[in-house]
Amino acid sequence: MQIGFIGLGRMGGNMVRRLSRGGHECHVYSNKAEEGAALAAETGALAAPSIAALVAGLDAPRTVWLMVPAGTVTQAVIDELAGLLSGGDTIIDGGNSNYRDSVARAAALAGKEIHFLDCGTSGGLFGLERGYSLMIGGDAAGVEAARPVFETLAPGVGAAPRTPVKDGGALQPGEAGWLHCGKAGAGHYVKMVHNGIEYGIMQAFAEGFALFASANDPVVPEERSYAFDLPAIAEVWRRGSVVSSWLLDLGAEALAGGKGLQDYSTRVADSGEGRWTLNAAIEQGVSTPVIADALFARFTSHDDAGTANRFLSALRNKFGGHDGVPKPGETKA
Amino acid sequence: MQIGFIGLGRMGGNMVRRLSRGGHECHVYSNKAEEGAALAAETGALAAPSIAALVAGLDAPRTVWLMVPAGTVTQAVIDELAGLLSGGDTIIDGGNSNYRDSVARAAALAGKEIHFLDCGTSGGLFGLERGYSLMIGGDAAGVEAARPVFETLAPGVGAAPRTPVKDGGALQPGEAGWLHCGKAGAGHYVKMVHNGIEYGIMQAFAEGFALFASANDPVVPEERSYAFDLPAIAEVWRRGSVVSSWLLDLGAEALAGGKGLQDYSTRVADSGEGRWTLNAAIEQGVSTPVIADALFARFTSHDDAGTANRFLSALRNKFGGHDGVPKPGETKA
Amino acid sequence: MQIGFIGLGRMGGNMVRRLSRGGHECHVYSNKAEEGAALAAETGALAAPSIAALVAGLDAPRTVWLMVPAGTVTQAVIDELAGLLSGGDTIIDGGNSNYRDSVARAAALAGKEIHFLDCGTSGGLFGLERGYSLMIGGDAAGVEAARPVFETLAPGVGAAPRTPVKDGGALQPGEAGWLHCGKAGAGHYVKMVHNGIEYGIMQAFAEGFALFASANDPVVPEERSYAFDLPAIAEVWRRGSVVSSWLLDLGAEALAGGKGLQDYSTRVADSGEGRWTLNAAIEQGVSTPVIADALFARFTSHDDAGTANRFLSALRNKFGGHDGVPKPGETKA
Amino acid sequence: MQIGFIGLGRMGGNMVRRLSRGGHECHVYSNKAEEGAALAAETGALAAPSIAALVAGLDAPRTVWLMVPAGTVTQAVIDELAGLLSGGDTIIDGGNSNYRDSVARAAALAGKEIHFLDCGTSGGLFGLERGYSLMIGGDAAGVEAARPVFETLAPGVGAAPRTPVKDGGALQPGEAGWLHCGKAGAGHYVKMVHNGIEYGIMQAFAEGFALFASANDPVVPEERSYAFDLPAIAEVWRRGSVVSSWLLDLGAEALAGGKGLQDYSTRVADSGEGRWTLNAAIEQGVSTPVIADALFARFTSHDDAGTANRFLSALRNKFGGHDGVPKPGETKA
Repeated sequence: MQIGFIGLGRMGGNMVRRLSRGGHECHVYSNKAEEGAALAAETGALAAPSIAALVAGLDAPRTVWLMVPAGTVTQAVIDELAGLLSGGDTIIDGGNSNYRDSVARAAALAGKEIHFLDCGTSGGLFGLERGYSLMIGGDAAGVEAARPVFETLAPGVGAAPRTPVKDGGALQPGEAGWLHCGKAGAGHYVKMVHNGIEYGIMQAFAEGFALFASANDPVVPEERSYAFDLPAIAEVWRRGSVVSSWLLDLGAEALAGGKGLQDYSTRVADSGEGRWTLNAAIEQGVSTPVIADALFARFTSHDDAGTANRFLSALRNKFGGHDGVPKPGETKA
Repeated sequence: MQIGFIGLGRMGGNMVRRLSRGGHECHVYSNKAEEGAALAAETGALAAPSIAALVAGLDAPRTVWLMVPAGTVTQAVIDELAGLLSGGDTIIDGGNSNYRDSVARAAALAGKEIHFLDCGTSGGLFGLERGYSLMIGGDAAGVEAARPVFETLAPGVGAAPRTPVKDGGALQPGEAGWLHCGKAGAGHYVKMVHNGIEYGIMQAFAEGFALFASANDPVVPEERSYAFDLPAIAEVWRRGSVVSSWLLDLGAEALAGGKGLQDYSTRVADSGEGRWTLNAAIEQGVSTPVIADALFARFTSHDDAGTANRFLSALRNKFGGHDGVPKPGETKA
Repeated sequence: MQIGFIGLGRMGGNMVRRLSRGGHECHVYSNKAEEGAALAAETGALAAPSIAALVAGLDAPRTVWLMVPAGTVTQAVIDELAGLLSGGDTIIDGGNSNYRDSVARAAALAGKEIHFLDCGTSGGLFGLERGYSLMIGGDAAGVEAARPVFETLAPGVGAAPRTPVKDGGALQPGEAGWLHCGKAGAGHYVKMVHNGIEYGIMQAFAEGFALFASANDPVVPEERSYAFDLPAIAEVWRRGSVVSSWLLDLGAEALAGGKGLQDYSTRVADSGEGRWTLNAAIEQGVSTPVIADALFARFTSHDDAGTANRFLSALRNKFGGHDGVPKPGETKA
Repeated sequence: MQIGFIGLGRMGGNMVRRLSRGGHECHVYSNKAEEGAALAAETGALAAPSIAALVAGLDAPRTVWLMVPAGTVTQAVIDELAGLLSGGDTIIDGGNSNYRDSVARAAALAGKEIHFLDCGTSGGLFGLERGYSLMIGGDAAGVEAARPVFETLAPGVGAAPRTPVKDGGALQPGEAGWLHCGKAGAGHYVKMVHNGIEYGIMQAFAEGFALFASANDPVVPEERSYAFDLPAIAEVWRRGSVVSSWLLDLGAEALAGGKGLQDYSTRVADSGEGRWTLNAAIEQGVSTPVIADALFARFTSHDDAGTANRFLSALRNKFGGHDGVPKPGETKA
């Protein structure tokens, strides 16, 4: 089908490639003109010089996919599109927007009879070949309008062995790798929780490998002091173990090559979904200690624990005359 | 090769099946005679009526694999074997023993020149077909003696795509699905941390699905209240998403069939490795909040929070006259 | 001075008593007429039959203190007052309102030149005798208008030994037991964090006493199994220990009398501030694991972990054939 | 009474001062001879040149108090004393020893009929004037032998208002500020949990003040951005609030003077009790997330999260091409 695509960065560019390979007519726009030109040259997509030109080049009813940074950029593009599109057209926000914003955007656009779909998109750089896991919120008519696009972008049922109980049965919701999760906001909600879980899994692995890395720390008695081969452990777990997973595959890749982890930053960014997951947990009254602690580990990695730690040292100094510096043997060097 | 195998339960029975299929001569013993007889009839293994008889039936140097409950049973079987085996023989403990016990056992058996290998074994019920991820500690001579057994039990390099950087290169440690992790205790240490990570991953998923299950709780404003299809979400994530993993596959299986989770217990057992991982983290001074909180969630599921919660209610009652029962609207019903 | 007081419950009633004893002319209103009449009879306050009557009975510029349930009741009373008061009058919200609501209310009332003060009030049932710790946000003119009331309600500098470095010096901010914390919302923000800290302290004590209560659990080896006297431990700590605190005093009171904690609920309510503190931590990017875990312990006490725990049991069942029920010796009975 | 005292550091020196003021005949020893001489000159205590001389100067049955660093020093002094003392004598370990060590020491000394008391001692530098909260384990005969010493060191019943329900009644256990908690190890167990709770309380305050310190962070919208006066908040809470406590008093002292917290270390030592508390929680199967997270915050302050964080950055880089450095606006600077 014909689709407009705005935002051609790491994620968006690959999605256009996958759509073009799938036979879709992609009209693309990037605020960096050379990005659009290059992608057009590579894929046969049609690069538009402006959002208005992109819209003008599409036949009604139009479908426009946004893959731009969540927040103010997304809002600005939607505002511009709202003035260009007509009733019956569909906007899909494939970025990591806060689902509460998506709820508001869908309501605002509904006044103009423009469908708004919020589409959580997972898959990262590997999605071009592997396909993207798509979690979609919005009204059913909008979802039907864009169905061919979802089917091309998604990995398809064959990307994983079918869950046993369903084998031989009809295709169940979600098995194709894309899912209409519910009304407006539902797609970004599911993607948000997905990322919250991802934070927890990443932190679980990080804690485990940190244990391996310090298993021969001087404080450990010699009889149980081990100098582990971290890349080898990642490899052995990738085959047959309970923790085998795509994140472990990526961990194995990061560890391979013999250079260790020294080139990677000790400062770990967070991009919003972990925070929003926790906000949702608070609203719903659901205990999510693992997701919270995974988020806090990232906060602490930004050096934000300075005040808290100084306060602790100050208390120790006041009640015990401790100077805030560990005594020999008291803690690891 | 010829191997003695003691313990024919859920895990042990399947391991003998896999070894027999692989052409190994298995001499088996279970403290339930009928279990041994049935397995012998099925696989061609030779069932021994006692541990002494099993040892007597093996040619020196002997290799005996234990797959019995960790703790007192393991110790008792090792004690009995220690009196029956000779220098140059090898005992492999494939169970979930505490690595500190394995260190002590290896040291004790070294006095008799008996090799002791601690072998963490992951794979669960699926290992028969999928192979077992094996993490091995002990001296190199013992590992070499049992190499054919490890090669048959492990999934093999083909069980996962090779990590990119290594493609085309020589087989790296761990890629075959079994790994000599280090000296005595190293295998059980790696398996312990594996299970600690597993606790964290399981809890991350559990928190996420709990959020979905309560996303239409009455406290949530109608505009962002969602009635999610949990099985469908598991399916869509299995294809292309960052959280795709074997545990997610199992979660999808548990959710499939339309019966929900009501048949599963709210009481979640823990079997030791999570606790030991935390003890190791304490010894090494490594922060492991996700693993700790995953363990605590299980402790709490045993209803052990009663005293703590009553104490909290008592404090609230004393300072505010609160009666420990939430007021309407204060918390979810 | 003359003050209007709306809301005569556990907190409000005692505050009027303290104000009356301090010589203030209190005009009071409760939506339960008998409550106002009884308090008037007891204290000499003037009970008004309606909010309008209460306002009519006050001389301009008027000061009205609200001590009503946070949320919709607070908003409704403020809305009614907004129609009755005039420029230069002052409304003080002494309840546990969300500071973000207070920011919005102050802005709305500023349009009518009505001062709005948000006043976090700590002290509970003991405040009548002990005084109330008051954390105030809003414009300086409003604070000055109500200064005599704050001075009477607060405990005064003598309620605690002066901090050494200041001894002999001029009274520092806060030392009188009331503090103008900043612009609108600042008072409720400080009170919110106060309560977040309170959650953490309460949970710390709860965990400690839970450890004592189970220190003779059958899983503990006999040589280090202790049957502790919890009330006695609370008493010994009240004298000279680092954890001596008002909350410990209350804990000692709850434990005294020999009845144990069995009459107190295992369900622990939360009233909002803990949740809001966590929301603020998320916004600010500050790691607050202790406050979060204290909040989650309360969520879990509401039985909300059911879905998460069932999911964990389901995973265990799928990968290991475990039935979700602990095996003997595996976990405490 | 007559008492031997070994270890004259920050804690021990003040305890001898308090005992001397209380009329006890103190025979003291320090491995720094000048420390003993100075204290003798100041207090009238008798300084011995060696442990053997100290023992020789005491009349049987002897009581010797140890206030030396927990661990190898404590063990060495006990070993030396064991060869010098006789049946009926009493050793008191007032340091922060692991209660499991105390259990073993009591058992070893019981073979020689030497009483061994493990005495948790709280109070820090302030104990000289304020008295020490004493938590004692061991046999009753040993406790009786040292009763006069405990009565002098403890703060006494008057150090806190009596818990209401007991007013007018007989003195209850613990009310004098010292408590025989149970058999060997019980004293150090109670002190250990005391310190675990202390970790949690300290962390709760640290988190709260960290929130205040960053409440005007640029990421916070201007309308709710506050520049708080931290010392003033500590002061207002010290009077009438629910979180009033000795630790808050110390926090107020640390914050006073206008220099902020910049002189205090961001590296916070831990001295063992927090770790042991967590080990006990694991053994007993008790959920202690607040104590655990307070401990982990200290571990992280030692920079030990480097490996874990680098692993997280590596995963992010692999799945999303993120470089581990936060994008502008993504996280706080």
